[in-house]
Amino acid sequence: VTTGFTHFDSDGRPTMVDVSEKPDTERVAIARAIVDMQRETRQRIEQGQIQKGDVLQVAQLAGIMGAKKTSDIIPLCHPLPLVKVQVVTEWLDSEAAENDVASLAITATVKVKYKTGVEMEALTACTTAALTVYDMCKAVDRAMTIRDVRLLYKTGGKSGTFDVRSKA
Amino acid sequence: VTTGFTHFDSDGRPTMVDVSEKPDTERVAIARAIVDMQRETRQRIEQGQIQKGDVLQVAQLAGIMGAKKTSDIIPLCHPLPLVKVQVVTEWLDSEAAENDVASLAITATVKVKYKTGVEMEALTACTTAALTVYDMCKAVDRAMTIRDVRLLYKTGGKSGTFDVRSKA
Amino acid sequence: VTTGFTHFDSDGRPTMVDVSEKPDTERVAIARAIVDMQRETRQRIEQGQIQKGDVLQVAQLAGIMGAKKTSDIIPLCHPLPLVKVQVVTEWLDSEAAENDVASLAITATVKVKYKTGVEMEALTACTTAALTVYDMCKAVDRAMTIRDVRLLYKTGGKSGTFDVRSKA
Amino acid sequence: VTTGFTHFDSDGRPTMVDVSEKPDTERVAIARAIVDMQRETRQRIEQGQIQKGDVLQVAQLAGIMGAKKTSDIIPLCHPLPLVKVQVVTEWLDSEAAENDVASLAITATVKVKYKTGVEMEALTACTTAALTVYDMCKAVDRAMTIRDVRLLYKTGGKSGTFDVRSKA
Amino acid sequence: VTTGFTHFDSDGRPTMVDVSEKPDTERVAIARAIVDMQRETRQRIEQGQIQKGDVLQVAQLAGIMGAKKTSDIIPLCHPLPLVKVQVVTEWLDSEAAENDVASLAITATVKVKYKTGVEMEALTACTTAALTVYDMCKAVDRAMTIRDVRLLYKTGGKSGTFDVRSKA
Amino acid sequence: VTTGFTHFDSDGRPTMVDVSEKPDTERVAIARAIVDMQRETRQRIEQGQIQKGDVLQVAQLAGIMGAKKTSDIIPLCHPLPLVKVQVVTEWLDSEAAENDVASLAITATVKVKYKTGVEMEALTACTTAALTVYDMCKAVDRAMTIRDVRLLYKTGGKSGTFDVRSKA
Repeated sequence: VTTGFTHFDSDGRPTMVDVSEKPDTERVAIARAIVDMQRETRQRIEQGQIQKGDVLQVAQLAGIMGAKKTSDIIPLCHPLPLVKVQVVTEWLDSEAAENDVASLAITATVKVKYKTGVEMEALTACTTAALTVYDMCKAVDRAMTIRDVRLLYKTGGKSGTFDVRSKA
Repeated sequence: VTTGFTHFDSDGRPTMVDVSEKPDTERVAIARAIVDMQRETRQRIEQGQIQKGDVLQVAQLAGIMGAKKTSDIIPLCHPLPLVKVQVVTEWLDSEAAENDVASLAITATVKVKYKTGVEMEALTACTTAALTVYDMCKAVDRAMTIRDVRLLYKTGGKSGTFDVRSKA
Repeated sequence: VTTGFTHFDSDGRPTMVDVSEKPDTERVAIARAIVDMQRETRQRIEQGQIQKGDVLQVAQLAGIMGAKKTSDIIPLCHPLPLVKVQVVTEWLDSEAAENDVASLAITATVKVKYKTGVEMEALTACTTAALTVYDMCKAVDRAMTIRDVRLLYKTGGKSGTFDVRSKA
Repeated sequence: VTTGFTHFDSDGRPTMVDVSEKPDTERVAIARAIVDMQRETRQRIEQGQIQKGDVLQVAQLAGIMGAKKTSDIIPLCHPLPLVKVQVVTEWLDSEAAENDVASLAITATVKVKYKTGVEMEALTACTTAALTVYDMCKAVDRAMTIRDVRLLYKTGGKSGTFDVRSKA
Repeated sequence: VTTGFTHFDSDGRPTMVDVSEKPDTERVAIARAIVDMQRETRQRIEQGQIQKGDVLQVAQLAGIMGAKKTSDIIPLCHPLPLVKVQVVTEWLDSEAAENDVASLAITATVKVKYKTGVEMEALTACTTAALTVYDMCKAVDRAMTIRDVRLLYKTGGKSGTFDVRSKA
Repeated sequence: VTTGFTHFDSDGRPTMVDVSEKPDTERVAIARAIVDMQRETRQRIEQGQIQKGDVLQVAQLAGIMGAKKTSDIIPLCHPLPLVKVQVVTEWLDSEAAENDVASLAITATVKVKYKTGVEMEALTACTTAALTVYDMCKAVDRAMTIRDVRLLYKTGGKSGTFDVRSKA
């Protein structure tokens, strides 16, 4: 009986799995995190952008740098030669309109040409960016929440394409 | 007009704020993330624990190590002399019973005796642990989602105690 | 005969010197680097600021994060509990007017309350910010030069105050 | 209108640019930094080399290790599989003869076979080495200055060869 | 006259050697460290495994993460795209039977397809795991000793196969 | 029943233990590793020192830097404000005389004024230095072995003084 988890060997020991037999293929992953905050916090962020103190740009940078740290942060991840990291932020206006909450979607796209995928890099990037938004705004809104951190899309590799963007 | 964000100076430049005038006080923060997964994934995790390949212990360790990396990951965080980091996991049985989803709560408690708080360390710890669960189980459940990443409790410092544990 | 270098012991071996007998005092250091570039490069940077792609804010952030990495980068530096890091940029207009060169001054201020000073943290911060400016603009101006990286001011500690700001 | 900076996307957001379409070619970069110091500081360095406490070797090592940290320090740099890093120091005797200043040139050569160049790695290497010289000698010469940090040579990649070594 | 050490150039300067001319070949290295401890310490470790506080799994993880940090820890190592890291622990029963000492062998296997070998990664992995065992058990057994840290096997590369496993 | 391991909580979960109640006291730890090599390898090292390519100084520096990375490498170690790190090498002539082996002792001394000890920092320092010696000499002596890595001395803290230097 096995758990089906590839990060453990047949004796159940954690391992950084052997990917040497896999071919180098182009792989892309897109992941997203959403930060819920008070409407007033959103107004302060937007006001800051005009004034040059740009919370969202700091968060994007933190996300890009976070992607590069993934194999240092996630114990069994392989170090990967990332060829692209992009972090984009977008206010989810329709959703926010329903109540007193403003929602910021942070989407990370990561690309590699290698033997294993970049799902963890995309997830780490958007999560790091979301934590950075929390850090910069926490003095005025300690109850901000990060939700719906998930993989939206991946392509390349043996397991094929995964795409839930239409449902997100 | 100012944004009220302490991480930007009066000209709107990002800055690591001067905390030299603050006294060293004991500060505790507790944060939580929840990972939603298929029930079958939960069964595999529990099966692995019996077999020694323990997803949850790997995640706890990653969370503790993540707390120590916080000032490296979050751009404007101060480096802090952490005196305690604990990461605890718990299955949310009642919630999971409603549908086909199993929910794992990951709670991080961080303590410091210093001039500034450890909210970011607690949030980074539980988020890193949650990402590690995703990494270890993604081969069997790519749609896992991390939700409700939030500060549950903090004490110490000028802003006083924040406590939403009863509502969580 | 001794070299007078405190980073080597009496046998000439490199060492991280014992500072345990020094008292914790507030110490501040200010250092500056200047980046020379084409006038056109400056115009592109200023244009980007309006458009949101802000080279200078990226450089400031890189400088702040660089200060935190100092003890990891400089072999014999002590790890320090930094309480403030600020990186400020300023165009040196009068100087630039003389010829076809635009000069950007990057000034870093670092503070600690500890047994040893933060000169290296301030120098590392402004240098890292300057290198980041180079990185972001190198596609259009490969000949940019970083010059006059120096300590402008320090206070605290046994060696007293050093201040050459009026001459800089 | 665009700034021409490749590190920002068409909306002006900072990004780690997609280099996946670029071919792997051999790329070399050479960069140099000069450290100005008092003649007496130079004498102490040379005296230390005889005695085994070798400032220059410590600086060379710091430079090599600094090159390996480039993608961690410079926010939008790609992680690169460096195949060679060399840091060489040389006293600029003719220049130093003019006044009371001794000048140490620190030259870094970095090589990679990859999709993007190693200019930043060479610049980071020589700068880190220069900062390390400052750190080791600062107790006796706080006014040391780092100047003329620049790219001397690069080859490989679409933009071709850049070579200003004869003018340096 | 030369020392034959490849990490120094012809002038005796430390250098990260140029491996660009070497072909990418599959390379494997296996290294081992042995931790000697009191029999009672071994019993506590085994007892903890039953209770879920698993010293050996923590050590294995630390070893895997240590392998990934090798080029950051060992000054002149190249950064390598590791494709496999495995750390296995085994009690050396026959040896331990002779006296009051229990001996734990920690064996690390590392693989890469690259221009240079992974001996240092395997040695760093098993040593880091051994240090982690010491850390976790030191409160009850401060005299634990790490011994016989050595390369057992390597294959790939110009120098061919090295194999002393039968003698270990 | 408990294992007595302080790094696991009462439920057996790994934890970074709470040291907040411990007083800041001066703590020193000394640890040692021995590297066995061929006599010829020793001769090459000594020859290199004369020529300036100094294996032992590179190893000392790596050891000092390794001490600073301890809390990053050893999962449950607290980050510590180290006030002194020294790494000393010594040829064990009497021992080496018995056979064809030369033995290099690497001794690390680390000091802190804090709530917890520096045993792991001292052990990590001497081990990192020993691995670095291996790295630099492996091209000529692949069978080098690191042995007898142990704590020689510690003082400060509740558990008092531990001293086995006379037996080492």
